Amino acid sequence: MPGVEAMTATVHAYVAAYEAADEESVVILFAEDAVIEDPVGTPPKRGHEEIRAFFRGAMEMGCKPVLDGPICLTEDHAAFPMRVPMCIDGQDMVYYGIDVFAFDAEGKVREMRAYHGPSNLVAKL
Amino acid sequence: MPGVEAMTATVHAYVAAYEAADEESVVILFAEDAVIEDPVGTPPKRGHEEIRAFFRGAMEMGCKPVLDGPICLTEDHAAFPMRVPMCIDGQDMVYYGIDVFAFDAEGKVREMRAYHGPSNLVAKL
Repeated sequence: MPGVEAMTATVHAYVAAYEAADEESVVILFAEDAVIEDPVGTPPKRGHEEIRAFFRGAMEMGCKPVLDGPICLTEDHAAFPMRVPMCIDGQDMVYYGIDVFAFDAEGKVREMRAYHGPSNLVAKL
Repeated sequence: MPGVEAMTATVHAYVAAYEAADEESVVILFAEDAVIEDPVGTPPKRGHEEIRAFFRGAMEMGCKPVLDGPICLTEDHAAFPMRVPMCIDGQDMVYYGIDVFAFDAEGKVREMRAYHGPSNLVAKL
């Protein structure tokens, strides 16, 4: 099992990689055969090549999610709320989501499931 | 698909049932053959009888979780952060967790997965 510190560090590295718009720093957090479903209900991306393309696309859109609450940890999962500041047609907005990482024994993310949808885009108060 | 309003109402009904310590009001939110894994990594509880016993136990411990952030919705999932106020040996504490509901076509919860662990119990600031 990866341990609390390692899982927490991976979540912070994920956020930092988005901040730096550096998709390689995200990809190395994932196992070679990892699967991501973001959002849940859309076709999964499998393996480093598809995962790299997915995150590159998100980063090219200027997506910079930040942690929006405590990282909740089981033995081998991390679930955490995210908030993505956006500006749409001059209006400051916030997009909310919750990500769940499942870790393998080496501490790599073997599965990511992200929960968000249109109802989670709201005007910033 | 259950729709945004129905899924949101179910999450609020879940929290209200805890507040009222009324396990029947939780059980009716779940499909007859629903499965809950709380926390993820522990043996699943299957069906209304096991689910009722699980929630009765939590309520008898005085557990009163409240929403701690936005409910994040896909087509048929709701993920939401929870916070449980506790008092342990005279110290005010907070226990954090994230729950994920998967809904069936009738709007009942067919699966609940809850993410939390020992690192999520912290002293209240």
